[in-house]
Amino acid sequence: MAFRFIPHEVKFFDMFDQQAVIITDAAHTFRELAQKGKFDDEAIARLRELEHQGDAITHDIIDTLNRTFITPFDREDIHSFAHELDNVVDMLYTTSKRMRLYKLNEVNDDLVSFSELIVQSVTALCRGIKGLRNHKKPREINEACIEVNQIENQGDLLRDAVIFKLFEKTKDPVKIMKWKEIFESVETVLDICEDIANLMDSILVKQG
Amino acid sequence: MAFRFIPHEVKFFDMFDQQAVIITDAAHTFRELAQKGKFDDEAIARLRELEHQGDAITHDIIDTLNRTFITPFDREDIHSFAHELDNVVDMLYTTSKRMRLYKLNEVNDDLVSFSELIVQSVTALCRGIKGLRNHKKPREINEACIEVNQIENQGDLLRDAVIFKLFEKTKDPVKIMKWKEIFESVETVLDICEDIANLMDSILVKQG
Amino acid sequence: MAFRFIPHEVKFFDMFDQQAVIITDAAHTFRELAQKGKFDDEAIARLRELEHQGDAITHDIIDTLNRTFITPFDREDIHSFAHELDNVVDMLYTTSKRMRLYKLNEVNDDLVSFSELIVQSVTALCRGIKGLRNHKKPREINEACIEVNQIENQGDLLRDAVIFKLFEKTKDPVKIMKWKEIFESVETVLDICEDIANLMDSILVKQG
Repeated sequence: MAFRFIPHEVKFFDMFDQQAVIITDAAHTFRELAQKGKFDDEAIARLRELEHQGDAITHDIIDTLNRTFITPFDREDIHSFAHELDNVVDMLYTTSKRMRLYKLNEVNDDLVSFSELIVQSVTALCRGIKGLRNHKKPREINEACIEVNQIENQGDLLRDAVIFKLFEKTKDPVKIMKWKEIFESVETVLDICEDIANLMDSILVKQG
Repeated sequence: MAFRFIPHEVKFFDMFDQQAVIITDAAHTFRELAQKGKFDDEAIARLRELEHQGDAITHDIIDTLNRTFITPFDREDIHSFAHELDNVVDMLYTTSKRMRLYKLNEVNDDLVSFSELIVQSVTALCRGIKGLRNHKKPREINEACIEVNQIENQGDLLRDAVIFKLFEKTKDPVKIMKWKEIFESVETVLDICEDIANLMDSILVKQG
Repeated sequence: MAFRFIPHEVKFFDMFDQQAVIITDAAHTFRELAQKGKFDDEAIARLRELEHQGDAITHDIIDTLNRTFITPFDREDIHSFAHELDNVVDMLYTTSKRMRLYKLNEVNDDLVSFSELIVQSVTALCRGIKGLRNHKKPREINEACIEVNQIENQGDLLRDAVIFKLFEKTKDPVKIMKWKEIFESVETVLDICEDIANLMDSILVKQG
């Protein structure tokens, strides 16, 4: 029996690692687009590709989950974990599509700041994901979770400051509408990262 | 014991069928309102009635679930399934109320297009719901799920095109605000249908 | 064994009572701010403090849950219950921060009306929470749930009336944007209260 169970355990961690690679790529790609202020068809093609890859691996995880009796941790938690990781990529792709739709082709320093926070948060998160495989190193996960939570707090403050500035300085209501949506979207990416970190933390506690 | 369990199995499928009738009616009603461009008190009364019927049957399902030990599939899945089906009707009613509130009494071709997609999606979904009762015909469910997913993709593209056009052609920011909300609401209906389809698919896999 | 289990049961109810105290305080604080039309730094400091207290107790509940084998009711329900109660405080704090951000320092009668409904809803909810501890008094919970649901219906009607008026009377699109967000936020507080009431109701049924 062990022959059947151990490979399945391993398989889940391998698939989470693949998701980690995808969200890392997506976060770096998004930062690059923000830095260039260029969200045209060509520029977002890479994010669409990553979104498709993310969908495929998430589908694999759920499929494996539905066919596996022994799982490395709670079924519900694996389910939520896979979907939330997928949401990171979806949200970055959706935000980029909105930037193109709204023709916001300009370098916006606040968006660049958000993209930096997203890269930092995703990087910490992926350290935690690697730690999941090895229950004997809970400290890595713990530290990663704390960092992700701190970054989300920074993101909250940044969003408030940025939206305050937006309403103070922009006269055109349509422009306010567009940028408000974008800033709330990128802050949501940090919220999702925080949810994932909290989920990792609770998985750790249950296995304590 | 079989006497007690089998009727319960059947009862759930009967109740899901009742939900299917309600969402089909709601989708057709909404399309009619969109085609007439008429979202006044009288016009939306039918949707309010359907929303009440939907609430009642959802309440019955949850109540039966809480009192039943053997269920045709996972308790959590039945719970989500009933609530998501109810959300379809709620969302159509809410959108109609907003149309009235915003005094958007005009025929909008893009809204008509969305209402067509909603009718198609709900029709496919209801074929799948009927298939649920008969585990031996998984192909029906599978095909229905694929169709619902394709329609949701069309809805995404339509929403993007429509919102692009809205920002390009409309000068009045308040009008943009109103229609943007409406278009996002109807696209959400297609998202909910997709969630329901995916849930059916995973129920099928678990029973494989 | 009973020595271990009973204290845990009691501990959960004690912690829910603490959450009840926090949301009651938050609802009264919010009403006071609305009545004064004053959402500056000093004024919202109390809500920030309550939000921190809410986070701490929610964390304690989840932590206790993860370490406890016998729980007074379904683990999932305890989890949702604690998080939804926390969401009430979060939402009131978030709304207050937005009021400050948008510089909406004026007494708005509609906001005061919403804050009254929130106090009523939270008060009814807390009666229900106290009833949870004593399964022998289901009537208290039931009556509280009915009241919370009725208040949410009033909130829906109020929101519709208020948003209709907003679009009819306000010329400045930016002002519409700001107040629409605020009114939808406060209505969401009533939605969350309704979700909590429905959850209590289903816990009751399961234990019936």
